Amino acid sequence: MRIVIVGGVAAGMSAASRARRLNPDVQVVVFERGGDISYGACGLPYVIGGDVPDFGHLIARTPERLRGQGIGVRLHHDVTGVDAAARTVTVLDRDSGRTLTEPYDRLLIATGVSAVRPDWARTELGGVHVLRDLPDGRAVAASLRGARRACIIGGGYIGLEMAEALRARGLSVVLLEKGPEVAGRMLDREYQQRVRAELERRGVEVRCGTTVEGLTGKAGRVTGVQTDHGLIRADLVIVAVGVKPNTALAQAAGARIGRTGAVAVNARQETSVEGISAAGDNTESTHRVTRRKVHLPLGLTANRMGRVAGVNMAGGDARFPGVVGTGIFKVFGLGAARTGLTQAEADGLGLRAVSVDVDSTDHAGYYPDAAPIHVRLTAERGSGRLLGAQLVGQPDSVKRVDVVAALLHKRASVQDLFELDLAYAPPFSSVWDVLLVAADRLGRELCS
Amino acid sequence: MRIVIVGGVAAGMSAASRARRLNPDVQVVVFERGGDISYGACGLPYVIGGDVPDFGHLIARTPERLRGQGIGVRLHHDVTGVDAAARTVTVLDRDSGRTLTEPYDRLLIATGVSAVRPDWARTELGGVHVLRDLPDGRAVAASLRGARRACIIGGGYIGLEMAEALRARGLSVVLLEKGPEVAGRMLDREYQQRVRAELERRGVEVRCGTTVEGLTGKAGRVTGVQTDHGLIRADLVIVAVGVKPNTALAQAAGARIGRTGAVAVNARQETSVEGISAAGDNTESTHRVTRRKVHLPLGLTANRMGRVAGVNMAGGDARFPGVVGTGIFKVFGLGAARTGLTQAEADGLGLRAVSVDVDSTDHAGYYPDAAPIHVRLTAERGSGRLLGAQLVGQPDSVKRVDVVAALLHKRASVQDLFELDLAYAPPFSSVWDVLLVAADRLGRELCS
Repeated sequence: MRIVIVGGVAAGMSAASRARRLNPDVQVVVFERGGDISYGACGLPYVIGGDVPDFGHLIARTPERLRGQGIGVRLHHDVTGVDAAARTVTVLDRDSGRTLTEPYDRLLIATGVSAVRPDWARTELGGVHVLRDLPDGRAVAASLRGARRACIIGGGYIGLEMAEALRARGLSVVLLEKGPEVAGRMLDREYQQRVRAELERRGVEVRCGTTVEGLTGKAGRVTGVQTDHGLIRADLVIVAVGVKPNTALAQAAGARIGRTGAVAVNARQETSVEGISAAGDNTESTHRVTRRKVHLPLGLTANRMGRVAGVNMAGGDARFPGVVGTGIFKVFGLGAARTGLTQAEADGLGLRAVSVDVDSTDHAGYYPDAAPIHVRLTAERGSGRLLGAQLVGQPDSVKRVDVVAALLHKRASVQDLFELDLAYAPPFSSVWDVLLVAADRLGRELCS
Repeated sequence: MRIVIVGGVAAGMSAASRARRLNPDVQVVVFERGGDISYGACGLPYVIGGDVPDFGHLIARTPERLRGQGIGVRLHHDVTGVDAAARTVTVLDRDSGRTLTEPYDRLLIATGVSAVRPDWARTELGGVHVLRDLPDGRAVAASLRGARRACIIGGGYIGLEMAEALRARGLSVVLLEKGPEVAGRMLDREYQQRVRAELERRGVEVRCGTTVEGLTGKAGRVTGVQTDHGLIRADLVIVAVGVKPNTALAQAAGARIGRTGAVAVNARQETSVEGISAAGDNTESTHRVTRRKVHLPLGLTANRMGRVAGVNMAGGDARFPGVVGTGIFKVFGLGAARTGLTQAEADGLGLRAVSVDVDSTDHAGYYPDAAPIHVRLTAERGSGRLLGAQLVGQPDSVKRVDVVAALLHKRASVQDLFELDLAYAPPFSSVWDVLLVAADRLGRELCS
């Protein structure tokens, strides 16, 4: 049995390890287009900002160690075609320029996502970057030298985390967002505003409702960003306007692409083509709250998908359980987290959703360093089913979003949340944890 | 409708507020034996240790404010008898010495617990204290003046929190525990040892397996603690060897006392006597994991019981959902939390329990200040049902015990925990949160 894996980062390497672990008789070969494998891409902003001393810290497993586990790793190998009938892939060895034909019994397509580059960002100018993989991270780090003014385009996870990183490096930072607020896809409006307030408090200039029209440059270096509200001078530009799944190879193999634009799979991570699986950021999943297909490329999801694919390819039986839409980020002294649906998302789906907002403290008000925490809890009128939660507060305090994620997983109700026996002592929470207070209020709101 | 409440701290005041809120036509009178109401007793060690500037900070609601809500509060009023047939209580006004007979339609007995005082602790010597209520807290604070050597007897929540408080005040501290380890009722042995190691690291001298035989004194002040392993010099002694429910009044009323020793109630917090409810630390509850009656006097449980009682007495319908045995405490730089059953508790109940231990970091290992976190996860062989979790780590990191508490509430399985879509970003957790790692290992252990 020969398993071929295309892509050696989160999903690909999880699959490789899991397959070998389950069945030491399988042969596993990983083709990775780039020169790095098995790294934590989510950590890139923290190396750039200086919290993590160098990019090497993000690497979980080296090719040598993987070879020791019986996993063949071929770097700079670009899989360019699939013959699903013959069960072979065409591989370009970018170092030698040779093209190989490699057989497989099971193929995993774990090609991830690419950063979206609008037309104006397709430039040769130095100092203009996306941030997706390790080479991008190294390139940004190199561009820091001598840079003074950064312009970040896009107010999603990466834009927000990069705003903090570049401020930490002493740059002035302007953050441009086309939409009306930052964190637009993650949070409802009031919670977006809290994130923006924190950015501004830390000296980031935030301009929402601003469309980029082009870049200006001089002597091969970027000098500014032209917008519909004027020119912003910048010698470092981060383009963080979204990602798109890398589906070309799956499409070439004849695999079905879902309505989300990502590769469609069943719960075993199998595509519509016999013998071919997909996992990771290029692959869609099922949202347990809405039962719809979604494309939410996040680290845990990618690793879990890879693991499921690895088990199944090696002859086991595992199922991807779906997601509930959990996300979390830190920006300066603020943590923001969400799970399930926002009110806006629920409205967009035509659900009869109702939300309450609670402003409390993350632990007993009288205990030192009690900090504000803001919670929005959302449920379905009629059924009383929990739909989602949003939390903004000190970073350590918002991980309690996981409690709601656990209940969403079990399709639990607001009443269930209110009944929980949560841990209380003054340094950890109020007697009634803010989640319980929110559930109490939401329960009454649902009855009114 | 006249509701009489005996006891004005957590359960009693929650009941009073809730009853008035639900039904503004009811008359609510609270008789409190002491001079304080509505305070957070869990905060006492933090005032003594200096984290909280004074005891007033612990008071949530004053008698004046409660009167404004239409709740009559009578301080220094000791309810000494009940005539359940006549629906009256006998009340001693300790200020005037008069005895009153007060009618009720609904009576709530929320008399809490008392600290256990062994024979040797029944002393007139100055400097010997229990810590249960606000006067105890004030007395300990007064004894701090001039004190240099503290001896704490008992290694439970209060003993541990007081060890930290008294070290913070610059005293030398010896902690005596009769059993083989500290935190004996909360954690399994390995986790108890981690707690002891932290105490010792912070200069607390811990002596387990030590039985107290008596106290020594001079000129009316304590000078030492006589043990089976010799004399320990001390000018401040904290006796924290446990609590017992105050059931005398409930017994006098003819209410059934459960096998736990606390007052037995149904899910509406009603005792076996018509018209009489009980709530709070004096009352037993149902453990949702074992379906047995338990006596776990804790702050959230007391408040929740009071709330349920208040709703029902005022004509509504509420049910106490039971507990899952969640507890948490901080000692110096360490947090410890538990929910459900420990392995030892499960063994004691004859369950086929199996546990795994995971040592990881509370967030991504490469992100600054990643600290060790230790998790024991316990489940039932055969069914795969989760039974409990124990966590020890940096204080902020152990509140994730609530995720397991949520799943225990829903009688979920190890597989459910492993499937959760938990929040991940490098400052908050590893890609696979330590709880997921534990669930993965435990799932495999259950299959083996």
